[in-house]
Amino acid sequence: MKRTFLMTPGPSPVPSFVLKGLAKEIIHHRTDEFRAVLEDVDKGLKSVFSTANPVLILASSGTGAMEAAVSNLFSKEDKIITISGGKFGERWTEIGTVYGLNVVNMDIEWGNQPSLEDLNQLLDKNPDAKAVLTTLTETSTGTVFDVKSIAEICSKRGLLSIIDAISGLGQDLFLTDEWGVDVVVSGSQKGLMLPPGLGFISLSEKAKRALTNSNLPKYYFDLSKALKSYAKNDTPYTPAVSLIVGLKESLDYINKEGVIARCGRFAKMAIAAQKAAKSLGLDLFSKSPSASVTAICSPESIKSSEIVGILRKEHGLSIAGGQAKLKDKIFRIAHMGWINEKDLISCFSLLESVLQKLGHKFKPGSSLSVLEEVFHG
Amino acid sequence: MKRTFLMTPGPSPVPSFVLKGLAKEIIHHRTDEFRAVLEDVDKGLKSVFSTANPVLILASSGTGAMEAAVSNLFSKEDKIITISGGKFGERWTEIGTVYGLNVVNMDIEWGNQPSLEDLNQLLDKNPDAKAVLTTLTETSTGTVFDVKSIAEICSKRGLLSIIDAISGLGQDLFLTDEWGVDVVVSGSQKGLMLPPGLGFISLSEKAKRALTNSNLPKYYFDLSKALKSYAKNDTPYTPAVSLIVGLKESLDYINKEGVIARCGRFAKMAIAAQKAAKSLGLDLFSKSPSASVTAICSPESIKSSEIVGILRKEHGLSIAGGQAKLKDKIFRIAHMGWINEKDLISCFSLLESVLQKLGHKFKPGSSLSVLEEVFHG
Repeated sequence: MKRTFLMTPGPSPVPSFVLKGLAKEIIHHRTDEFRAVLEDVDKGLKSVFSTANPVLILASSGTGAMEAAVSNLFSKEDKIITISGGKFGERWTEIGTVYGLNVVNMDIEWGNQPSLEDLNQLLDKNPDAKAVLTTLTETSTGTVFDVKSIAEICSKRGLLSIIDAISGLGQDLFLTDEWGVDVVVSGSQKGLMLPPGLGFISLSEKAKRALTNSNLPKYYFDLSKALKSYAKNDTPYTPAVSLIVGLKESLDYINKEGVIARCGRFAKMAIAAQKAAKSLGLDLFSKSPSASVTAICSPESIKSSEIVGILRKEHGLSIAGGQAKLKDKIFRIAHMGWINEKDLISCFSLLESVLQKLGHKFKPGSSLSVLEEVFHG
Repeated sequence: MKRTFLMTPGPSPVPSFVLKGLAKEIIHHRTDEFRAVLEDVDKGLKSVFSTANPVLILASSGTGAMEAAVSNLFSKEDKIITISGGKFGERWTEIGTVYGLNVVNMDIEWGNQPSLEDLNQLLDKNPDAKAVLTTLTETSTGTVFDVKSIAEICSKRGLLSIIDAISGLGQDLFLTDEWGVDVVVSGSQKGLMLPPGLGFISLSEKAKRALTNSNLPKYYFDLSKALKSYAKNDTPYTPAVSLIVGLKESLDYINKEGVIARCGRFAKMAIAAQKAAKSLGLDLFSKSPSASVTAICSPESIKSSEIVGILRKEHGLSIAGGQAKLKDKIFRIAHMGWINEKDLISCFSLLESVLQKLGHKFKPGSSLSVLEEVFHG
């Protein structure tokens, strides 16, 4: 009997107390009972987002929340700056283009993070830009961006900062209000330990003012309407009740540890994973590795899809391969949400056995010693 | 201890075997295991929709699927005809207007269904119209529309027929292909016995051709992209995995009875509810009552919100009041999804006791005799 275990960057494992929440008897969404859940969840989300801004809940994946940011904050031909260094950064460019915005993309090498100097130069050349849209954690490359500095640059220039924190929230430190981030987008199936199906978006006062100027079409994702309902502790359309009931459980759990303590713990796990990879003679792909996912270069003679395939088929462990131009070049180990130190140790133990089988040379057990040293040394 | 029971027109109760599906260990969506679920669910949905057309699954409420129909099938200033006789029909008009379409609304008296003669006249006057958008079951008034005839008129004139079957599917007979309906929209939390969070949309060949001409902006709800993924048994964005795993359970159950047999059973329940209401001296609100929900006029001296309130507070039974201009005038008893004959008997028994308490005069037990006669007579 093989148990399967997910160490993929979304969906991440859902703990049993959240699964139980999902399976509770359904309640009607226009009742005091559900409004009490919404109220708790609102407090919990604000803690995890480190914000006093409203955090709206959408029945959609995180991509829906990204689209909502674009269609609600801009008007046709508005100029926006997108910073992309991977598959998810490119999504901002695609959405902006679909809505007829004037998108200036700052395309950075995959695995790198944006140079702040280059960003400032680009903004100097585009004084009519209204916003910068980028990613906290680019899961396709395992890279975390210095969103704090990007948001600071935006604040100084009076631009909106719009951050996709779908994969990073809960692991990569992210302080919405302290850093002055205007709009934060997230999803349920990563750090929040839920199945996919919920999107989130928080809006600063500046972002709320921008809503009123937008002339792009939107209905289901109309955030002005959602804010009106939010003020009455309600939702404009039928909410995804069971996922929100499950969300309450996961937020309670996360906030018991505290999101900042949690980010510290995941940062340590990431450092451990990085050192463990190096101890096996493997290179890291990212120059700014994330606390949520570690991207490791496959040895030259081995396709990463082989490693991923054997782990899944023979050991029931799901990690991720490379996407798009990184296919067969890297493999990615997620440490997010419900995944902990123990899981990382099992993962590297299995990884060692697969690498040995595929003929990669290293000193057996070396990654496990490194992990133990970081965790317990 | 009060158990609560939902006889509201969405969410409807979720049976325990579906709840168990929701609480299954999460699986990754890009795996053979999940693709097998998607394949089963596709067959099951086609049976329930009575169609051979693809039925796309969206992570959204039904409203998201309605918006997808509009934003994918039309271009700015296209003329569409919306038929509305209640809150949900109006939604088509609102969405069309948001997208800058030329919306001609056929506004019919609430509780009535559209006259086919009037519709033909309106279409004669608007030969440039591209589609008719309307509702199978207008839950706000408890009315079913003669969608078969409307679709026939559309086919003859070469117009697209686009039907919101969110509330009716599974109870009000609806034969997509036999009736030649081009686009059918539905949601998870009514006849399909799931929590809210999934939207569905089926597309005929004619509708698929219309997709290619549309120039309205869309990203998350881009159906051309969704169809490409569908052909590979995949989804363009992360699907709501747990709800889809639950959906498999509910579809298996529904298709064991068969959707047509099921619709027959619900039609009988609706007739029973209608007769039971009349036996208490109450009028039906709708002139074309639906098999999914029965809308009953409150006695003149009693606000319907009082009836609904006492049922909920004292008996733990949730039925619905009237919305918008029907507030306090009607109450609505849903018979959809998991709700059965036994539930209807309990409901009328409690309703009798509440009506007595509020001073309405009738022969006690009369509604129960009527129900028994219809069910067992």
